[in-house]
Amino acid sequence: MPLGSDYASQHCAIARSLEIVGERWTLLIVRDLFYGVRRFNDLRKHIGAPSATLAQRLGDLVEAGVVARVPGRGARDEYELTERGRALWPVLRELGTWGGACLDPDERHAYTHATCGSVLVDGRCPACGIAPPAEDIVMHPAERQPADADADPVTRALGRPHRLLEPLAV
Amino acid sequence: MPLGSDYASQHCAIARSLEIVGERWTLLIVRDLFYGVRRFNDLRKHIGAPSATLAQRLGDLVEAGVVARVPGRGARDEYELTERGRALWPVLRELGTWGGACLDPDERHAYTHATCGSVLVDGRCPACGIAPPAEDIVMHPAERQPADADADPVTRALGRPHRLLEPLAV
Repeated sequence: MPLGSDYASQHCAIARSLEIVGERWTLLIVRDLFYGVRRFNDLRKHIGAPSATLAQRLGDLVEAGVVARVPGRGARDEYELTERGRALWPVLRELGTWGGACLDPDERHAYTHATCGSVLVDGRCPACGIAPPAEDIVMHPAERQPADADADPVTRALGRPHRLLEPLAV
Repeated sequence: MPLGSDYASQHCAIARSLEIVGERWTLLIVRDLFYGVRRFNDLRKHIGAPSATLAQRLGDLVEAGVVARVPGRGARDEYELTERGRALWPVLRELGTWGGACLDPDERHAYTHATCGSVLVDGRCPACGIAPPAEDIVMHPAERQPADADADPVTRALGRPHRLLEPLAV
Protein backbone atom coordinates (compact mmCIF):
# COMPACT_ATOMS: atom_id res chain seq x y z
CA MET A 1 0.00 0.00 0.00
CA PRO A 2 1.86 2.98 -1.36
CA LEU A 3 1.42 5.68 1.28
CA GLY A 4 0.82 3.41 4.26
CA SER A 5 3.66 4.52 6.46
CA ASP A 6 3.16 8.18 5.63
CA TYR A 7 -0.50 8.49 6.52
CA ALA A 8 -0.55 5.89 9.32
CA SER A 9 -0.90 8.44 12.12
CA GLN A 10 -4.12 9.77 10.63
CA HIS A 11 -7.23 8.23 12.14
CA CYS A 12 -9.44 9.12 9.26
CA ALA A 13 -11.16 7.06 6.59
CA ILE A 14 -10.20 9.61 3.92
CA ALA A 15 -6.50 9.13 4.76
CA ARG A 16 -6.97 5.34 4.71
CA SER A 17 -8.48 5.57 1.23
CA LEU A 18 -5.72 7.83 -0.03
CA GLU A 19 -3.12 5.31 1.15
CA ILE A 20 -4.58 3.04 -1.53
CA VAL A 21 -5.64 5.42 -4.30
CA GLY A 22 -3.78 8.66 -3.50
CA GLU A 23 -0.70 8.05 -5.63
CA ARG A 24 -0.25 9.80 -8.95
CA TRP A 25 -1.86 7.80 -11.83
CA THR A 26 -3.76 5.43 -9.54
CA LEU A 27 -7.26 6.89 -9.90
CA LEU A 28 -6.73 7.26 -13.65
CA ILE A 29 -5.94 3.53 -13.80
CA VAL A 30 -9.05 2.75 -11.76
CA ARG A 31 -11.08 4.93 -14.14
CA ASP A 32 -9.82 2.97 -17.15
CA LEU A 33 -10.70 -0.32 -15.46
CA PHE A 34 -14.26 1.01 -15.04
CA TYR A 35 -14.20 1.85 -18.75
CA GLY A 36 -13.39 -1.78 -19.55
CA VAL A 37 -9.73 -1.32 -20.44
CA ARG A 38 -8.15 -4.52 -19.08
CA ARG A 39 -4.84 -5.22 -20.85
CA PHE A 40 -1.56 -3.82 -19.60
CA ASN A 41 -0.58 -2.47 -23.00
CA ASP A 42 -3.98 -0.87 -23.60
CA LEU A 43 -3.79 0.82 -20.19
CA ARG A 44 -0.27 1.99 -20.91
CA LYS A 45 -1.13 3.49 -24.29
CA HIS A 46 -4.38 5.08 -23.16
CA ILE A 47 -3.16 6.52 -19.87
CA GLY A 48 0.36 7.34 -20.97
CA ALA A 49 1.99 6.33 -17.68
CA PRO A 50 5.52 4.90 -17.86
CA SER A 51 5.46 1.07 -17.92
CA ALA A 52 7.34 0.68 -14.64
CA THR A 53 4.98 3.08 -12.87
CA LEU A 54 1.91 1.36 -14.28
CA ALA A 55 3.21 -2.05 -13.21
CA GLN A 56 3.94 -0.73 -9.72
CA ARG A 57 0.51 0.87 -9.35
CA LEU A 58 -1.32 -2.22 -10.61
CA GLY A 59 0.71 -4.39 -8.22
CA ASP A 60 -0.20 -2.09 -5.33
CA LEU A 61 -3.89 -2.21 -6.29
CA VAL A 62 -3.81 -6.02 -6.49
CA GLU A 63 -2.14 -6.16 -3.08
CA ALA A 64 -4.82 -3.86 -1.64
CA GLY A 65 -7.60 -6.08 -3.00
CA VAL A 66 -8.90 -3.38 -5.34
CA VAL A 67 -7.85 -5.09 -8.59
CA ALA A 68 -7.53 -8.76 -9.58
CA ARG A 69 -5.23 -10.20 -12.22
CA VAL A 70 -7.23 -12.72 -14.22
CA PRO A 71 -6.72 -14.92 -17.29
CA GLY A 72 -7.29 -12.82 -20.39
CA ARG A 73 -9.05 -13.33 -23.69
CA GLY A 74 -5.67 -13.75 -25.39
CA ALA A 75 -2.40 -15.16 -24.12
CA ARG A 76 -1.87 -12.51 -21.47
CA ASP A 77 -3.47 -11.85 -18.13
CA GLU A 78 -5.87 -8.96 -17.76
CA TYR A 79 -6.84 -6.73 -14.85
CA GLU A 80 -10.30 -6.17 -13.47
CA LEU A 81 -11.79 -4.37 -10.48
CA THR A 82 -12.79 -6.49 -7.51
CA GLU A 83 -15.95 -5.76 -5.52
CA ARG A 84 -13.87 -3.42 -3.34
CA GLY A 85 -12.61 -1.68 -6.46
CA ARG A 86 -16.07 -1.34 -7.99
CA ALA A 87 -17.18 0.40 -4.79
CA LEU A 88 -14.89 3.28 -5.82
CA TRP A 89 -17.27 4.36 -8.58
CA PRO A 90 -18.82 7.26 -6.59
CA VAL A 91 -15.33 8.76 -6.06
CA LEU A 92 -14.69 8.76 -9.82
CA ARG A 93 -18.18 10.05 -10.55
CA GLU A 94 -17.70 13.02 -8.19
CA LEU A 95 -14.29 13.79 -9.71
CA GLY A 96 -15.98 13.89 -13.12
CA THR A 97 -18.78 16.08 -11.79
CA TRP A 98 -16.25 18.51 -10.34
CA GLY A 99 -14.18 18.57 -13.51
CA GLY A 100 -17.26 19.17 -15.63
CA ALA A 101 -18.67 21.88 -13.36
CA CYS A 102 -15.49 23.70 -12.39
CA LEU A 103 -12.96 23.06 -15.17
CA ASP A 104 -14.37 22.18 -18.60
CA PRO A 105 -18.04 21.37 -19.31
CA ASP A 106 -17.22 20.03 -22.79
CA GLU A 107 -15.28 17.15 -21.29
CA ARG A 108 -18.12 15.93 -19.10
CA HIS A 109 -19.48 12.44 -19.72
CA ALA A 110 -23.16 11.64 -19.47
CA TYR A 111 -24.24 8.46 -17.69
CA THR A 112 -27.47 6.56 -18.21
CA HIS A 113 -29.12 3.67 -16.39
CA ALA A 114 -28.59 0.60 -18.61
CA THR A 115 -31.90 -1.01 -17.69
CA CYS A 116 -34.20 1.97 -18.39
CA GLY A 117 -32.11 4.47 -20.36
CA SER A 118 -32.70 7.43 -18.02
CA VAL A 119 -29.92 9.95 -17.54
CA LEU A 120 -28.48 9.67 -14.03
CA VAL A 121 -28.57 12.72 -11.76
CA ASP A 122 -25.96 12.77 -8.98
CA GLY A 123 -25.49 9.05 -9.62
CA ARG A 124 -29.18 8.27 -9.15
CA CYS A 125 -31.76 7.12 -11.69
CA PRO A 126 -34.75 9.48 -11.36
CA ALA A 127 -37.07 6.93 -13.03
CA CYS A 128 -36.15 3.91 -10.89
CA GLY A 129 -35.27 5.80 -7.68
CA ILE A 130 -32.01 3.93 -7.14
CA ALA A 131 -28.28 4.60 -7.46
CA PRO A 132 -27.34 1.85 -9.94
CA PRO A 133 -24.09 -0.05 -9.42
CA ALA A 134 -21.35 0.67 -11.95
CA GLU A 135 -22.12 -2.43 -14.04
CA ASP A 136 -25.61 -1.04 -14.75
CA ILE A 137 -24.36 2.33 -15.99
CA VAL A 138 -23.70 3.32 -19.61
CA MET A 139 -21.09 6.02 -20.18
CA HIS A 140 -21.65 8.43 -23.07
CA PRO A 141 -18.55 10.13 -24.40
CA ALA A 142 -17.74 13.78 -23.77
CA GLU A 143 -18.78 16.33 -26.36
CA ARG A 144 -15.17 17.14 -27.17
CA GLN A 145 -13.44 14.23 -28.85
CA PRO A 146 -10.01 13.98 -30.46
CA ALA A 147 -9.90 13.57 -34.25
CA ASP A 148 -10.08 9.85 -35.05
CA ALA A 149 -6.75 9.93 -36.83
CA ASP A 150 -4.99 11.20 -33.70
CA ALA A 151 -6.55 8.74 -31.33
CA ASP A 152 -5.25 5.44 -30.01
CA PRO A 153 -7.59 2.41 -30.35
CA VAL A 154 -8.84 2.67 -26.75
CA THR A 155 -9.72 6.36 -27.16
CA ARG A 156 -11.53 5.55 -30.41
CA ALA A 157 -13.50 2.74 -28.76
CA LEU A 158 -14.44 5.05 -25.89
CA GLY A 159 -15.84 7.54 -28.40
CA ARG A 160 -18.99 5.39 -28.48
CA PRO A 161 -21.40 4.74 -25.57
CA HIS A 162 -20.04 1.93 -23.41
CA ARG A 163 -21.40 -0.01 -20.44
CA LEU A 164 -19.06 0.36 -17.45
CA LEU A 165 -16.93 -2.68 -16.59
CA GLU A 166 -17.77 -4.43 -19.86
CA PRO A 167 -14.49 -5.46 -21.50
CA LEU A 168 -13.73 -2.91 -24.18
CA ALA A 169 -13.36 -4.36 -27.69
CA VAL A 170 -10.04 -3.02 -28.99
CA MET B 1 -1.15 22.34 -12.85
CA PRO B 2 0.88 19.31 -11.85
CA LEU B 3 -0.11 16.61 -14.33
CA GLY B 4 -1.27 18.87 -17.13
CA SER B 5 1.00 17.72 -19.88
CA ASP B 6 0.63 14.06 -18.96
CA TYR B 7 -3.14 13.82 -19.08
CA ALA B 8 -3.72 16.42 -21.80
CA SER B 9 -4.66 13.90 -24.50
CA GLN B 10 -7.53 12.59 -22.38
CA HIS B 11 -10.87 14.18 -23.21
CA CYS B 12 -12.46 13.32 -19.92
CA ALA B 13 -13.54 15.42 -16.98
CA ILE B 14 -12.09 12.85 -14.56
CA ALA B 15 -8.65 13.26 -16.15
CA ARG B 16 -9.04 17.06 -16.02
CA SER B 17 -9.79 16.84 -12.29
CA LEU B 18 -6.87 14.53 -11.64
CA GLU B 19 -4.54 17.01 -13.32
CA ILE B 20 -5.37 19.32 -10.40
CA VAL B 21 -5.88 16.95 -7.47
CA GLY B 22 -4.28 13.69 -8.63
CA GLU B 23 -0.81 14.23 -7.19
CA ARG B 24 0.29 12.45 -4.04
CA TRP B 25 -0.65 14.47 -0.89
CA THR B 26 -2.95 16.89 -2.74
CA LEU B 27 -6.32 15.50 -1.65
CA LEU B 28 -5.03 15.11 1.91
CA ILE B 29 -4.17 18.82 1.90
CA VAL B 30 -7.63 19.65 0.54
CA ARG B 31 -9.16 17.49 3.28
CA ASP B 32 -7.26 19.43 5.96
CA LEU B 33 -8.43 22.75 4.48
CA PHE B 34 -12.02 21.48 4.81
CA TYR B 35 -11.22 20.63 8.43
CA GLY B 36 -10.20 24.26 9.04
CA VAL B 37 -6.42 23.73 9.16
CA ARG B 38 -5.11 26.90 7.50
CA ARG B 39 -1.51 27.55 8.54
CA PHE B 40 1.42 26.09 6.64
CA ASN B 41 3.07 24.71 9.78
CA ASP B 42 -0.15 23.17 11.07
CA LEU B 43 -0.71 21.49 7.69
CA ARG B 44 2.87 20.25 7.68
CA LYS B 45 2.70 18.76 11.18
CA HIS B 46 -0.73 17.23 10.73
CA ILE B 47 -0.24 15.78 7.26
CA GLY B 48 3.43 14.89 7.62
CA ALA B 49 4.35 15.89 4.06
CA PRO B 50 7.86 17.26 3.50
CA SER B 51 7.88 21.09 3.57
CA ALA B 52 9.05 21.45 -0.03
CA THR B 53 6.33 19.09 -1.27
CA LEU B 54 3.65 20.85 0.75
CA ALA B 55 4.75 24.26 -0.58
CA GLN B 56 4.73 22.92 -4.15
CA ARG B 57 1.27 21.38 -3.80
CA LEU B 58 -0.21 24.51 -2.19
CA GLY B 59 1.31 26.64 -4.95
CA ASP B 60 -0.21 24.36 -7.61
CA LEU B 61 -3.62 24.54 -5.90
CA VAL B 62 -3.43 28.34 -5.73
CA GLU B 63 -2.50 28.47 -9.42
CA ALA B 64 -5.46 26.22 -10.26
CA GLY B 65 -7.86 28.48 -8.37
CA VAL B 66 -8.70 25.80 -5.79
CA VAL B 67 -6.97 27.47 -2.83
CA ALA B 68 -6.40 31.14 -1.93
CA ARG B 69 -3.58 32.53 0.16
CA VAL B 70 -5.09 35.08 2.53
CA PRO B 71 -3.89 37.28 5.42
CA GLY B 72 -3.84 35.18 8.58
CA ARG B 73 -4.90 35.72 12.17
CA GLY B 74 -1.21 36.11 13.14
CA ALA B 75 1.75 37.45 11.21
CA ARG B 76 1.67 34.80 8.53
CA ASP B 77 -0.62 34.16 5.57
CA GLU B 78 -3.07 31.30 5.72
CA TYR B 79 -4.66 29.09 3.07
CA GLU B 80 -8.34 28.59 2.43
CA LEU B 81 -10.45 26.82 -0.17
CA THR B 82 -12.01 28.98 -2.87
CA GLU B 83 -15.52 28.31 -4.15
CA ARG B 84 -13.99 25.94 -6.74
CA GLY B 85 -12.13 24.16 -3.92
CA ARG B 86 -15.21 23.88 -1.71
CA ALA B 87 -16.98 22.16 -4.60
CA LEU B 88 -14.58 19.24 -4.07
CA TRP B 89 -16.36 18.18 -0.88
CA PRO B 90 -18.33 15.32 -2.51
CA VAL B 91 -15.05 13.77 -3.73
CA LEU B 92 -13.65 13.76 -0.19
CA ARG B 93 -16.94 12.51 1.25
CA GLU B 94 -16.99 9.55 -1.15
CA LEU B 95 -13.35 8.72 -0.38
CA GLY B 96 -14.31 8.62 3.31
CA THR B 97 -17.36 6.50 2.59
CA TRP B 98 -15.23 4.02 0.66
CA GLY B 99 -12.54 3.92 3.35
CA GLY B 100 -15.14 3.36 6.06
CA ALA B 101 -17.03 0.69 4.13
CA CYS B 102 -14.15 -1.18 2.51
CA LEU B 103 -11.10 -0.59 4.71
CA ASP B 104 -11.74 0.31 8.35
CA PRO B 105 -15.18 1.18 9.81
CA ASP B 106 -13.63 2.49 13.05
CA GLU B 107 -12.00 5.35 11.17
CA ARG B 108 -15.21 6.60 9.62
CA HIS B 109 -16.34 10.12 10.49
CA ALA B 110 -19.99 10.98 11.01
CA TYR B 111 -21.37 14.19 9.47
CA THR B 112 -24.40 16.14 10.65
CA HIS B 113 -26.34 19.05 9.19
CA ALA B 114 -25.31 22.10 11.27
CA THR B 115 -28.71 23.77 11.04
CA CYS B 116 -30.86 20.83 12.21
CA GLY B 117 -28.46 18.28 13.71
CA SER B 118 -29.55 15.35 11.54
CA VAL B 119 -26.99 12.77 10.51
CA LEU B 120 -26.29 13.04 6.77
CA VAL B 121 -26.90 9.99 4.57
CA ASP B 122 -24.90 9.92 1.32
CA GLY B 123 -24.26 13.62 1.84
CA ARG B 124 -27.97 14.47 2.14
CA CYS B 125 -29.95 15.63 5.16
CA PRO B 126 -32.97 13.34 5.46
CA ALA B 127 -34.85 15.93 7.57
CA CYS B 128 -34.35 18.92 5.26
CA GLY B 129 -34.18 17.02 1.96
CA ILE B 130 -31.07 18.84 0.75
CA ALA B 131 -27.36 18.12 0.29
CA PRO B 132 -25.90 20.85 2.53
CA PRO B 133 -22.79 22.70 1.34
CA ALA B 134 -19.60 21.93 3.25
CA GLU B 135 -19.88 25.03 5.47
CA ASP B 136 -23.17 23.70 6.88
CA ILE B 137 -21.74 20.32 7.82
CA VAL B 138 -20.35 19.31 11.23
CA MET B 139 -17.73 16.56 11.25
CA HIS B 140 -17.73 14.17 14.20
CA PRO B 141 -14.45 12.40 14.88
CA ALA B 142 -13.85 8.75 14.10
CA GLU B 143 -14.36 6.21 16.86
CA ARG B 144 -10.68 5.32 16.92
CA GLN B 145 -8.60 8.22 18.20
CA PRO B 146 -4.92 8.41 19.10
CA ALA B 147 -4.00 8.82 22.77
CA ASP B 148 -3.96 12.53 23.59
CA ALA B 149 -0.33 12.40 24.65
CA ASP B 150 0.73 11.09 21.22
CA ALA B 151 -1.25 13.60 19.21
CA ASP B 152 -0.20 16.88 17.64
CA PRO B 153 -2.38 19.94 18.43
CA VAL B 154 -4.34 19.70 15.17
CA THR B 155 -5.16 16.05 15.76
CA ARG B 156 -6.28 16.88 19.31
CA ALA B 157 -8.50 19.72 18.10
CA LEU B 158 -10.04 17.42 15.48
CA GLY B 159 -10.94 14.96 18.23
CA ARG B 160 -13.97 17.15 18.92
CA PRO B 161 -16.91 17.84 16.59
CA HIS B 162 -15.97 20.62 14.20
CA ARG B 163 -17.86 22.59 11.58
CA LEU B 164 -16.22 22.20 8.16
CA LEU B 165 -14.25 25.22 6.86
CA GLU B 166 -14.38 26.98 10.26
CA PRO B 167 -10.82 27.93 11.17
CA LEU B 168 -9.55 25.36 13.66
CA ALA B 169 -8.44 26.82 17.00
CA VAL B 170 -4.96 25.41 17.58
